[in-house]
Amino acid sequence: MTQPAVVNQYAPFTTQTVVEFVKTLSIFDHPNRLIANEIGDGNLNLVFQLVELETNRSIIVKQALPYAKVVGESWPLSLNRAKIESESLRITAKVVPDLVPHVLHTDHELACTVMEDLSDYNILRTELISNHHYPLLAEHIGRYLAQTLFSTSDFALHPFVKKELVQKFTNPDLCKITEDLVFTDPFFDHPTNDFPTELRPAVEAIWADETLLTEVGILKFQFLTQAEALLHGDLHTGSIFVTSQSTKVIDPEFAFFGPIGFDLGQFFANIILNALSKLATTERPALLSELLRTTERTWITFAQEFTKLWDESNQEIYTNVSGILPRFLLKIWTDAIGFAGCEIVRRTIGLAHVADLDSIEDFHTQIEIKERALQLGADLIKSRTQLYSLSHFIQRIKGALRS
Amino acid sequence: MTQPAVVNQYAPFTTQTVVEFVKTLSIFDHPNRLIANEIGDGNLNLVFQLVELETNRSIIVKQALPYAKVVGESWPLSLNRAKIESESLRITAKVVPDLVPHVLHTDHELACTVMEDLSDYNILRTELISNHHYPLLAEHIGRYLAQTLFSTSDFALHPFVKKELVQKFTNPDLCKITEDLVFTDPFFDHPTNDFPTELRPAVEAIWADETLLTEVGILKFQFLTQAEALLHGDLHTGSIFVTSQSTKVIDPEFAFFGPIGFDLGQFFANIILNALSKLATTERPALLSELLRTTERTWITFAQEFTKLWDESNQEIYTNVSGILPRFLLKIWTDAIGFAGCEIVRRTIGLAHVADLDSIEDFHTQIEIKERALQLGADLIKSRTQLYSLSHFIQRIKGALRS
Repeated sequence: MTQPAVVNQYAPFTTQTVVEFVKTLSIFDHPNRLIANEIGDGNLNLVFQLVELETNRSIIVKQALPYAKVVGESWPLSLNRAKIESESLRITAKVVPDLVPHVLHTDHELACTVMEDLSDYNILRTELISNHHYPLLAEHIGRYLAQTLFSTSDFALHPFVKKELVQKFTNPDLCKITEDLVFTDPFFDHPTNDFPTELRPAVEAIWADETLLTEVGILKFQFLTQAEALLHGDLHTGSIFVTSQSTKVIDPEFAFFGPIGFDLGQFFANIILNALSKLATTERPALLSELLRTTERTWITFAQEFTKLWDESNQEIYTNVSGILPRFLLKIWTDAIGFAGCEIVRRTIGLAHVADLDSIEDFHTQIEIKERALQLGADLIKSRTQLYSLSHFIQRIKGALRS
Repeated sequence: MTQPAVVNQYAPFTTQTVVEFVKTLSIFDHPNRLIANEIGDGNLNLVFQLVELETNRSIIVKQALPYAKVVGESWPLSLNRAKIESESLRITAKVVPDLVPHVLHTDHELACTVMEDLSDYNILRTELISNHHYPLLAEHIGRYLAQTLFSTSDFALHPFVKKELVQKFTNPDLCKITEDLVFTDPFFDHPTNDFPTELRPAVEAIWADETLLTEVGILKFQFLTQAEALLHGDLHTGSIFVTSQSTKVIDPEFAFFGPIGFDLGQFFANIILNALSKLATTERPALLSELLRTTERTWITFAQEFTKLWDESNQEIYTNVSGILPRFLLKIWTDAIGFAGCEIVRRTIGLAHVADLDSIEDFHTQIEIKERALQLGADLIKSRTQLYSLSHFIQRIKGALRS
C-alpha cells in the first residue's frame, strides 16, 4: 500500500482530502477505492459519507468548521467542540452503547470524528412531521437520559473525577449560543429574532410579561451555574436518528456540565412542538395521543432507570437517605418543564425555527398554532413549580392542544 | 550584592532557605540582614515572618505543604492551592483592596506567596472570645462579600471569562475537605468525628434525623454543583484579622466557584458559635446583642452593596428585569442559613472544633451549650425556607440563646 499524503494541519476537508485522510486509518480493507460525498445540512460542520466500492461499506467523517455557517464566517466557533463531541460519544457509549453511533477514530488537530454511518436511519423530526410513530422511542430516550445523566453526576463519580470532567467539557462557544438563542434573544426585541408581522402582538405580550422574564432569567442562571451532569446540550428531534427497532442520539457538540432537566426539557419541547403542528392535520386525535404518551413514557422510563441507578450507587453516602431522591427528581422535573417552555418559545420566534411549525401550509393556521405555542411555552415556564406531577403537565399540554 | 543560591525546586522552606529565597526578590533595601521566624499555627502551611533588621520592616512568606499536618503526611494535598490562594487574593484586591493583605510576590513552583505582614492585627476569633467588640466588622465583611461575590458572578462577567475562571479555580483537594468535614462526616457515625461521650445522645439524634439528613444532602449537592461565584471557601473567624479600624480577610486557599450563600453562612455560623459560648459568661446580654447586630448588619450591608452593584451592572440584560434580584437574594439568604446550620453542627462534633466552644471551662456548661448548638444547627437547616427574613432568623437565634 502506498503511503498517502500526510494530512495533519487543520483545513476544511474536500471530497478529495477526506479520502486521503481516511486512507491513513486502518478502517477499510480496500482503502484505494473510496468515494466521498458531503451530505451535511447542519450549520456548524462538514459531514462526509465515504463508501468503499468493493463492499459498499460506509462510514461518516464529521468535521467542525471554525465558524457558524448560518451567519457566515462572522460567528467564530472553537474547533474544540469536535473533541467535546467525540469525547462525549465515547463516555456515552460506556453506558448506552446501543443508543449512540460507534466512534471509529478521532483527530483533535483536524477537528474531526470518524464514525458509524447511520444511513439506514431517518431523522426523528422528519418522521414525526410525516406522521410516523416510533413505539420504542420513549423507552430509548428515557434510558439514554437516565444512564448518561446519572453516570456523570456527583451521585456516581468521585468528586475528583467529576471536577476533572467539568473542566474538560467546558464549552464556552456552544453554551453561548444556547445562552443567547434559547434564554435571551427571544425574550427581548433582538435582531436575531424571526417571526411574521402577524405574530407580533403575541410576541410583544411575551416581551412585556415581567413575571415570565423573571422566571426565564432564573432558568438562564441555572443553565449558567448548575453543573449537575454531562448534558447532550442540544437534544431536539433533529439530533435523534431512528429505525423501527433502534434509536441513535447524535451530535453532542453542545455537551457540557449543566442542569439535568435541560436535556429532558428540550426533548419534551420538540415533541410538543410536533404535537402542536398536528392541530393543522385531519388525523390529529390518534397522533396527539401517541405524542403525549411519548412524553409520559419518556419521563416514566427516565425516573425508573434513574431510581435503579441511584439504589445501586455506592459512591455517595447520601443516596442512602430516602428523602433525597424524590426531592431531586422533583427538581429535575420542574427544571425540565421550565426549559421546555423556553425551547418552545425560542423555536417559534427565535433565530432557529423547527420545520414542524414552519411547514404548516395554511398561513392563518400556522399563525394561530404559533400563538398557542407561545402561550403554552410561557405558561409552562411560569407554572412549572405548580405542575407537581406528570398528569398536571399532560393536562396542561392537552389544554393547549384543545381546539 | 552577591547573587544568592538559586531556589527553584519545591521543598518546604526552613528559616534559612526562606531568607535565601526572599533575597532573590527586590523587596528589601537591606536584604542581607533578614531574620526569619516560623509563626504558623495552621494545619496545611508554613508561615514565616521575615524582618529587615535595619528598618524593622517585615513581610510574610506563606508556603503550602504537600499534606495536611493535622493528620500527618497521610492526607496529601495539592500544592496548587498556593496558586489558588494568591490568584484569589489578586482578584479580590481589584474590588476590595483595603480588605485583603497586599501580595508582593508569588512563586507557583515553590507554592508560596509573599505578602504584607499583618502583625499589628489580631485574629477575630481570639478577639471575640476575649469579649472585644469591633464596630466596623459587619460593614467590612458585608462589603467584602458583596463585592467579591458579585464581581465574579455571571451578572458581572462575560460568560467566556467566567467559565475560564471556573476552570482555573477548580480546587478538588480543598473542596473534598469541605465535602467530607462539613457536609458528610458529622452527620454519620464516622471516625473523624470528635465529641465527648456526654454529648452522644444529642449526636445520635442528629444521625437519626432523616429529615435533617435529606436537607444536608441537598445542601451538599448545591455545594458540589452550583458555580455561582468565586468563594473564599473558608470564611470562619480565624480567617479574619482585625484592628479597631481595619479588617483583613486572609487564607482563601479553599477558593472555588460555589454557591454564594456558603461564605455568608460560614461567617454567620462562627459569629453564632461565639454568641453561644457567651451563655457561659456573666456579661452576656450586652455581648449577645452586639453579636446579633453583627450578623444583622453584615446581611444588610451585603444586600445593599449587592443591589448597588446589580443596578450598575450592564453585562447581563436580565439584571434589568425587576423581579430577579429579590428572588436571587432570597436564594442566597436561604442557602446561607442552611450552610450556617451545617457549619454550627460540624464545628461542634466534627474533626475541626472552634475554641469558642471548647474553651468553656465548666464541662457541664460546655456540654449544655454544645447541645444547644446542635439543636440550633439542625433547626436552621430544616427551617431555612421558612425563615424568610432577617427578623425570623434573629428570633430563631435568640430562642437558642435564651436560658
